Amino acid sequence: MGAGAQQRVFDTIAADKDVDGFSAESVGLLVQNRPKLVACTPAGVIELLEREGIAIAGRHAVVIGRSDIVGKPMALLFLHRDATVTICHSRTPDLPSMCRQADILVAAVGKAGLVTRDFVKPGATVVDVGMNRVTDPAVASRLFPAGHAKLASFQSKGSVLVGDVHPDVAEVAGAFTPVPGGVGPLTITMLMMNTLRAARARVGSSVAG
Amino acid sequence: MGAGAQQRVFDTIAADKDVDGFSAESVGLLVQNRPKLVACTPAGVIELLEREGIAIAGRHAVVIGRSDIVGKPMALLFLHRDATVTICHSRTPDLPSMCRQADILVAAVGKAGLVTRDFVKPGATVVDVGMNRVTDPAVASRLFPAGHAKLASFQSKGSVLVGDVHPDVAEVAGAFTPVPGGVGPLTITMLMMNTLRAARARVGSSVAG
Repeated sequence: MGAGAQQRVFDTIAADKDVDGFSAESVGLLVQNRPKLVACTPAGVIELLEREGIAIAGRHAVVIGRSDIVGKPMALLFLHRDATVTICHSRTPDLPSMCRQADILVAAVGKAGLVTRDFVKPGATVVDVGMNRVTDPAVASRLFPAGHAKLASFQSKGSVLVGDVHPDVAEVAGAFTPVPGGVGPLTITMLMMNTLRAARARVGSSVAG
Repeated sequence: MGAGAQQRVFDTIAADKDVDGFSAESVGLLVQNRPKLVACTPAGVIELLEREGIAIAGRHAVVIGRSDIVGKPMALLFLHRDATVTICHSRTPDLPSMCRQADILVAAVGKAGLVTRDFVKPGATVVDVGMNRVTDPAVASRLFPAGHAKLASFQSKGSVLVGDVHPDVAEVAGAFTPVPGGVGPLTITMLMMNTLRAARARVGSSVAG
């Protein structure tokens, strides 16, 4: 199914049941900073940062990736929390130096281990939204040193799940989220939160009506 | 009228007549890169840059200001044309150094002469969206040197219309738009363009129906 066909299917979802936050109306309300149902992954990232006490206001947030479901809503959520926001992508000329400016760096491109330690300012918060299944032994050994548990797992199973952030980044980042087990569970949680929110709004409106 | 009341009025405008591009649906469609009616000032800036042959793809565009009607749609239009985009605002810690990274700098904050030459990388394109009526003699003399025609005009009329960009920027910028007479006329033109577009869509749909 192409992107156009996918969007036509999304467009048939009633705005008040749009728990993924993918409809034009949901997105427009987010831009106007009066969100109703917000895309789950970026909402989960904000939840995670806020619960960890990581300041957003006045910081420079750099988002790698400009998808409708992560990159763009992520940038808007940061902007509305008073971060200065930069959106990078495949056409950004010097990606590492742009990313090194970030106080908060979010990687959402789907390229295994793209973000290496030279992308990260010491002490920065790094959020890894990527989720890539690596099946190429060369890629696996670029990501993990000999003897690493993940490399052993790759060798026995023939594949391993990794993020967009190279594991070495742990040595420079002030805080970072693992893959799997980082942002992923938050996405599911925010989907349930949106479902609850939509259900409450429905009950509220039927009571009001 | 507060921002909330203003938005409630906007919300009553039918999406297919929303020639300002201010409705949640128009904004959402812009985010999803399938625009119908786009906010006129940022659309005018793109028109101006494209007609002047100023490359956007692969460049770093920095937007000062995050309003719904200029800053945010401007950032999205740049992003969809493959620029790396940064949005700055009143909470950006070191605004001049952030702006000095820009290949294309758009000022849309409404502060007379905010953008001084130390904000501008030599050769950068500077687009001034600000439109401020200066009535304070101290501000006027900070903006214009003794003997400048605008200062003489201020002294005779008691006010002068200036942008967000200090006139000195002309000495470092590769290209820049004046105020008045720069972006302003484009805004009006794009409003007429949107009106034509909306009328055509209406005729098209009545023919189709």
